[in-house]
Amino acid sequence: MDFKTSNAEGPVDFINVFDLEKMAQKVIPKGAFGYIASGAGDTYTLHENIRSFNHKLIVPHTLMNVENPSTKTVFDGDELSSPLILAPVAAHKLANEKGEVASAKGVSEFGTIYTISSYSTVDLPEVTQALNGSPEWFQFYFSKDNGINRHIIDRVKEQGIKAIVLTADATVGGNREVDARNNFVFPVNMPIVQEYLPVGVGKSMDYVYKSAKQKLSPKDVEFIAEYSGLPVYVKGPQAKEDVDRAIDAGAAGIWVSNHGGRQLDGGPAAFDSLQEVSKAVNHRVPIVFDSGIRRGQHIFKALASGADLVALGRPAIYGLALGGSEGTRQVFEKLNEELRLVMQLAGTQTIEDVKNYQLRDNHYESSVGYDLNDLKLF
Amino acid sequence: MDFKTSNAEGPVDFINVFDLEKMAQKVIPKGAFGYIASGAGDTYTLHENIRSFNHKLIVPHTLMNVENPSTKTVFDGDELSSPLILAPVAAHKLANEKGEVASAKGVSEFGTIYTISSYSTVDLPEVTQALNGSPEWFQFYFSKDNGINRHIIDRVKEQGIKAIVLTADATVGGNREVDARNNFVFPVNMPIVQEYLPVGVGKSMDYVYKSAKQKLSPKDVEFIAEYSGLPVYVKGPQAKEDVDRAIDAGAAGIWVSNHGGRQLDGGPAAFDSLQEVSKAVNHRVPIVFDSGIRRGQHIFKALASGADLVALGRPAIYGLALGGSEGTRQVFEKLNEELRLVMQLAGTQTIEDVKNYQLRDNHYESSVGYDLNDLKLF
Amino acid sequence: MDFKTSNAEGPVDFINVFDLEKMAQKVIPKGAFGYIASGAGDTYTLHENIRSFNHKLIVPHTLMNVENPSTKTVFDGDELSSPLILAPVAAHKLANEKGEVASAKGVSEFGTIYTISSYSTVDLPEVTQALNGSPEWFQFYFSKDNGINRHIIDRVKEQGIKAIVLTADATVGGNREVDARNNFVFPVNMPIVQEYLPVGVGKSMDYVYKSAKQKLSPKDVEFIAEYSGLPVYVKGPQAKEDVDRAIDAGAAGIWVSNHGGRQLDGGPAAFDSLQEVSKAVNHRVPIVFDSGIRRGQHIFKALASGADLVALGRPAIYGLALGGSEGTRQVFEKLNEELRLVMQLAGTQTIEDVKNYQLRDNHYESSVGYDLNDLKLF
Amino acid sequence: MDFKTSNAEGPVDFINVFDLEKMAQKVIPKGAFGYIASGAGDTYTLHENIRSFNHKLIVPHTLMNVENPSTKTVFDGDELSSPLILAPVAAHKLANEKGEVASAKGVSEFGTIYTISSYSTVDLPEVTQALNGSPEWFQFYFSKDNGINRHIIDRVKEQGIKAIVLTADATVGGNREVDARNNFVFPVNMPIVQEYLPVGVGKSMDYVYKSAKQKLSPKDVEFIAEYSGLPVYVKGPQAKEDVDRAIDAGAAGIWVSNHGGRQLDGGPAAFDSLQEVSKAVNHRVPIVFDSGIRRGQHIFKALASGADLVALGRPAIYGLALGGSEGTRQVFEKLNEELRLVMQLAGTQTIEDVKNYQLRDNHYESSVGYDLNDLKLF
Repeated sequence: MDFKTSNAEGPVDFINVFDLEKMAQKVIPKGAFGYIASGAGDTYTLHENIRSFNHKLIVPHTLMNVENPSTKTVFDGDELSSPLILAPVAAHKLANEKGEVASAKGVSEFGTIYTISSYSTVDLPEVTQALNGSPEWFQFYFSKDNGINRHIIDRVKEQGIKAIVLTADATVGGNREVDARNNFVFPVNMPIVQEYLPVGVGKSMDYVYKSAKQKLSPKDVEFIAEYSGLPVYVKGPQAKEDVDRAIDAGAAGIWVSNHGGRQLDGGPAAFDSLQEVSKAVNHRVPIVFDSGIRRGQHIFKALASGADLVALGRPAIYGLALGGSEGTRQVFEKLNEELRLVMQLAGTQTIEDVKNYQLRDNHYESSVGYDLNDLKLF
Repeated sequence: MDFKTSNAEGPVDFINVFDLEKMAQKVIPKGAFGYIASGAGDTYTLHENIRSFNHKLIVPHTLMNVENPSTKTVFDGDELSSPLILAPVAAHKLANEKGEVASAKGVSEFGTIYTISSYSTVDLPEVTQALNGSPEWFQFYFSKDNGINRHIIDRVKEQGIKAIVLTADATVGGNREVDARNNFVFPVNMPIVQEYLPVGVGKSMDYVYKSAKQKLSPKDVEFIAEYSGLPVYVKGPQAKEDVDRAIDAGAAGIWVSNHGGRQLDGGPAAFDSLQEVSKAVNHRVPIVFDSGIRRGQHIFKALASGADLVALGRPAIYGLALGGSEGTRQVFEKLNEELRLVMQLAGTQTIEDVKNYQLRDNHYESSVGYDLNDLKLF
Repeated sequence: MDFKTSNAEGPVDFINVFDLEKMAQKVIPKGAFGYIASGAGDTYTLHENIRSFNHKLIVPHTLMNVENPSTKTVFDGDELSSPLILAPVAAHKLANEKGEVASAKGVSEFGTIYTISSYSTVDLPEVTQALNGSPEWFQFYFSKDNGINRHIIDRVKEQGIKAIVLTADATVGGNREVDARNNFVFPVNMPIVQEYLPVGVGKSMDYVYKSAKQKLSPKDVEFIAEYSGLPVYVKGPQAKEDVDRAIDAGAAGIWVSNHGGRQLDGGPAAFDSLQEVSKAVNHRVPIVFDSGIRRGQHIFKALASGADLVALGRPAIYGLALGGSEGTRQVFEKLNEELRLVMQLAGTQTIEDVKNYQLRDNHYESSVGYDLNDLKLF
Repeated sequence: MDFKTSNAEGPVDFINVFDLEKMAQKVIPKGAFGYIASGAGDTYTLHENIRSFNHKLIVPHTLMNVENPSTKTVFDGDELSSPLILAPVAAHKLANEKGEVASAKGVSEFGTIYTISSYSTVDLPEVTQALNGSPEWFQFYFSKDNGINRHIIDRVKEQGIKAIVLTADATVGGNREVDARNNFVFPVNMPIVQEYLPVGVGKSMDYVYKSAKQKLSPKDVEFIAEYSGLPVYVKGPQAKEDVDRAIDAGAAGIWVSNHGGRQLDGGPAAFDSLQEVSKAVNHRVPIVFDSGIRRGQHIFKALASGADLVALGRPAIYGLALGGSEGTRQVFEKLNEELRLVMQLAGTQTIEDVKNYQLRDNHYESSVGYDLNDLKLF
C-alpha cells in the first residue's frame, strides 16, 4: 500500500483553526482527511458539538483589576502551561509522516498532557522519548483478551505513563459514511496493538474496532485500575447514570466526550452533556472534556461548565499536518492565546477564576454555525 | 397508456437511504417518482417528519456490557428479525415492473411483516405467495359499499392475512401539488379494488381517493373487527381523543402516522405526535409508527417513544426500484444494521431494552435538516 | 403619465398562490408590482406573517364521520359561500385595467363580502353595480375634515354599503423601501377621495397617506358610528388595550391586521396577535383577520384561533392581474377548495366546527419559510 | 505610509444604512473598511447584536391621538433633537480625510451629543470648534500613568467637555481576524494620546490597546470622577454585578455596549443585556446603549427597554465616508426619521412615551438576519 502524506515541519501561517482545517485538506490525502474530519451519520451531533457552545454566553465583566491572565494550571501534580491537553487521536501518520513523534514534541514544547492512542502509528517508547518528560496518558482500546491487556498495561507502566483513559463510547465504530464513500482503509500500521491484533495497513476502521472488546462493563474499569495502579479516566459518560457507574467502578476521572461526533449521531452535543455531567460528578473526581473545541471561548466555556481539563483533537492533527511538531505547538499556542484574551475580557485572572465564572444561559438560537459540507469530503 | 419503469433485480450499492432516493429518481419516471417522493402543500409536515427526530436525543450509555445486540422481536406470535416492517404503499409497479411480488419477496427474506395496500398493483394471492409464509397485513381503503367491503375482507381472510389496517387519515387525497404540476395519473392497475371501483390506469390520485369512503366513523372499525374477526389497526390517530375513539370502537392497535406528510400539511410531525399518543394509549394496545424513518436512530427513537413496530415507506420503494426483491431486502437490512449500531452504542442489548430506554429532550433547534427541494420534482 | 398594466380576463392556470405571485410579476409593471408585493423595512414582519402559521398545528382528527364539508357561513345576515372575504386593497387598476369593476365581479361570483378601499381606482357606484347585490363594505381612510368625512359616509350609505372599516394602523405610510428604490408614484386616480384630496396620478404613497388624518382617536370611531349608523370595524388592534379602546368607542367588530407587513416592521406577526386579540375580545364582537393568508390551512388556523371572517389581500390582486374577474374568483375558489380539503382531513364538517377546533401549540421552530427575496423587487 | 481615503462632502443618496455599508466599502480602503465593519472571532456576537432586536416586538397601538411625534429630548440640561447620539469611534480619518472635524460638524447640525474617542485622528480643540457649541463627551482609553491621565482630563475640561466615558470592555483588543488577514495597521495619527503614547501611523490595533491600562478597577472610576468633577459613564457593564460595581465607584451613568461585537465573541447581544442592565440600574442613573443599531425600530426598542440615550457607531462613519459632515448628518436624520415613523405607528407622541412603552416578548425565532459575509472583507 503506497501512502504519501505531508512531511511538513515548521511554522504555519493561519488565523484560526477553521482556516487550518481547509489548509490541511490540501496536504492530507483525501481518504485520510475524510477519516479525520468527518463524523457519523448525518453529522448532526458533530455540527451540534460546535454550535452548542452558543447555548452559554460569556458576559465580559468590567473593572475586574485583571492583567495578563495566566492559563497555568497544576493537574495531579503536573504543572501545565494550560488546561488544554491533547485528546487521544488514532494514527497521526495519516497527517504527517513523522506521526506521533512530531505531535509529542510539539505538545511537550507547549507544556501540557499528551494522550497517546492505542492506535498510535508510533510505538510507545518513541513517543515517550519525544515527550521528553512531559506528562503522558494512555488511551486504551481494551482487548477481549486480558493477557493482552495486562501486557499492554505492563508496557504502559514501563514508560512512566501517568493515567489510562478507557474509551467507553466506541465499542464499535460509528457510522462513518465518508469513509465508506472513500473506501477508506488504514494505510499505516499501529504498533502498540498490532503485535496482538490484526489491525494496521489495509484494515478498515470497522475492522479495527471489532478487534477490540465490545462488552465493556464496570468490571473492566476495576481490572485496569487494580492491575495498573494508575488513575483510570472513563471516556464517554454523558449522563448521571454513566457517571455513577464509572465512579462506582473506580474511575479516577470522567472524560466527557462524544468522540467528536464520530460515534453515535442523533445524540447530544458534548458541551450540553457537560452541564449534566458536572452536576452529577459534583466534584467527586476531575472532569476532562473534548468534542467541538475550536476556539479559546470554547475552552473558557467548558472550564466554566465544570471541566478541569479540555482536550483537543482534530485541530491538533491539522497543525501536525501543516507544520509537524512546530505546527502542533502553534495550534495549542493559538487557542491558548485566544483563551487568554477571553480571560482578560471576561475579567478572570486565573484558571481557577474561569472555573468559578458563571456563564449566562442563552435563550435564543442562532443561525451562525459551522458547515462541514464546505469541505466536500468525498 | 404506455408506462415503462425500472425492472431492476439484484444488489444495490448505496450508503444511506438519502442516496437511494436520488438514485431512484433516475430509474423511476418523473410523474411516478414525484408521486412517491413528494408531500402535501408546502411540504412543511413532510420536512418536519424527518427533522423532528432531533427533538429527542440518544445519550450513548457506556459500560453497559452489551455485545452484538439483537433486533429480533416477537409480535402477536410472529417472530420478526426486526420491529421494522413494511408500511402500506400504493402501486409498487410505479417503481418496479414486478411490483408487490418483488417487494414481498424482499420483505419475506428480511423476515418481517408486509402490509399490502388496497391499491396494490398485484392481486392478493400473488403477493401472499411471494411472501412465502411471512406475516401479511392488509391496509384497507374502505368502500362506501359494505357489500364490497365484506367481499374484500373475505378475500383477505382467504389469504391468511393476520391484521387489517384501516387508513383513517386519508378520507380524501392530500393537496399533492407535485402531482398536479406533473399531471400525474396512475399508469398502472389496482386489481384488489378494481373489480368494483373505477380506479387504475389513467385515474388521478384524487379520483382514486374519492372512490373510497369519506365518512369514516367508529362504526366502520366495529364493522371490520366484527366481520373479519381480525385485529384492526387504525392508522392516523395523533391525539388522545383519536386514540380513545379508535380503541373504544374496538381497534386492536394504533398506527401513528401522518401518511408521510402526504395528507394534511400544517399538521404536527408524526414523531412529535407519537409522544402524545404513547401517553394516551398507555399500553392498552400496541402502537405502530411510520412517517419520516430514514435512519436507524429514527427507529430507535420511535421505539423508545412507545412504538412497538416501526414501518417503512418511501425508502423501501426506492430499494424496490433499484434492486427489486434484493434491493428491498437490502434497505431493510441497511436500516436494521444502523439500528443495531445505535443499540450497541446506546448500551441496549435487546428491543425490549430500547423500548425501556429514556431519550433526552432536546432544548435546542438545529439547522441541519432534509431538503426535498434538492430533488427538483417538477 | 403613461401607465399600462394587464388587461387579462379569463381562467388562469395555477397550482397555488405562491405561483400566482411569480406569474403576476410578469404582467404588472415593476413599480406597481413592488408596491403590491413588498413590505416595510427589513420585511421581518411580512415574513413572520406567513411563517407564524406554523406556530399552531392542525392535528388531523380521524373517524369523525365527515363528508363534503361546507364552508358556507352566515355573517350579519349575509349568506356567504365562505368566511373568506376581500380585504381592502388600494388601487386595483395597478394590477388590471378594469380595476375594482373586475375584482368586484369576481368576488360577487364567488359569493362573499367585498371591502372597497378609500383609494379605489373606480368610484363607488360602478363597484356597487359590479357587485350585483353581493355584500359590500367600505374601508375608510379618514379625512382631517369632518365635512368631507360626512360627505363620503353619505355616498357610502347611498350605495347600500353594510359596514365601514376604519383603518387605524396606517395613520402614516410605512417605510416601504422598495417603493423608494423604484421611485414609485401612483400612476392611477382615486376617484372616491380625489374630489377633495390631492391624491392620484403622480402622487407617492407617503403623500397620499399624509393627506389623511394622523391623529385618529376613539372619537373618530364614535363619529363614524353615530353619523353612519353602520357597524364600524376598527382595523389594526393587536393587543388587549387596543381592543378595549375600540370596543369602548363603539366598534362593532375588531379587524386584526398588520396591514400585510406594510406598516410597522419589527412588530408581531398578525396571526400571533390574533391569539391575544381573541382572548381580549372574548366574543363581545366579531373578529376579522388578515395578513399572511396564502393557504387553506391558514384560513383554518385563523378561524380556529378566533376569527369569524378571514380577509385576502395580495393573492386576490394577483388573480385580478392574471385573469380579471374570473382570475379573482378563481383565487377565492382555490383557497376555499384548500380549506375544504383541510376541513375534511381535520374532521370538521362546518365552519362552526372549525371555530371550535383546538389547534396544537408548536414547540419547535421550522426552517421552512417564504422568501420574498426570490422576487427581486427592485 | 501612503493612505488615501474618501474626501467626499455633500448629500448621499441611500435608502437605509445597510445600503450605506455597501456603498462605503467602495470608498474606504480595504484594510480600513475591514477594521470598521468587522468584529471579533466568529462574529457571532456581532450578528446577534442586530438579530436580537427581534427578541422584542413593537405592537402598533391604534387610536392613540398621535400626530407628528417629536424625538426632542433634554439630557442633563442639553436640548437634543433626538436621543440618538454619536458613539465613540476611533480614527474617523480612516473613512474621510477630514475626519472628526467633518463628523463633528454633521452631528452638531443634527443637534445631538458627540462622543470623541481617545483615538480621535483630530485633536480636541479642532473637534470642539467644529461642534460649535453642541454637547461633547470624551471617551477615555485610560493610561497606565496617572500623570498622563490628569493631563488629558485637564485638556478635556479646557474644551468644556461635559462627560467622560470610560471604556471598560476593551482592556485589550478583541480577536479581530479581518484585521489580521488584511495586516491592518493604523495609517493615521491619534493626536490626543500620541504625545504620550507610541500610537498612530504604522501601529496595529493590538499595539494601541496594549499601550492603555489593562488593570482597570473601580478605583479608576473614582479617580476620574474626583479629578475631573465630571459625570463618568462606564462603558461595558452587561450584568447586575458590573452595574453595581460601577455605580458604587461613582459612575454617573451606565453605557451598555459590547463594543459593536468587536471585543468578546461568544458573549450576549448588547440588546439582550440591556434588559438585565435596566432592571439592575433601576433608575439610579441614566443608561446609554450602543451595539447593533441599524434601524429606527432598534432605537425605539432600546429606549423602551430602559435606555435614555442610544449611540450610533458604524453607520455614522459610513455616512462620513460618503458625504463628510452632510453625510454624517443625513445618517442621523434618516434613522431619526425612521424612529419618528415608528413612534407614529406605535402610538407614541414623545420620547417619554417611548420609554414608557411596553414591548411584547417574542417567543419565536426568525431566520431573517444580517449577513456580514456578504461584504467579503478580506
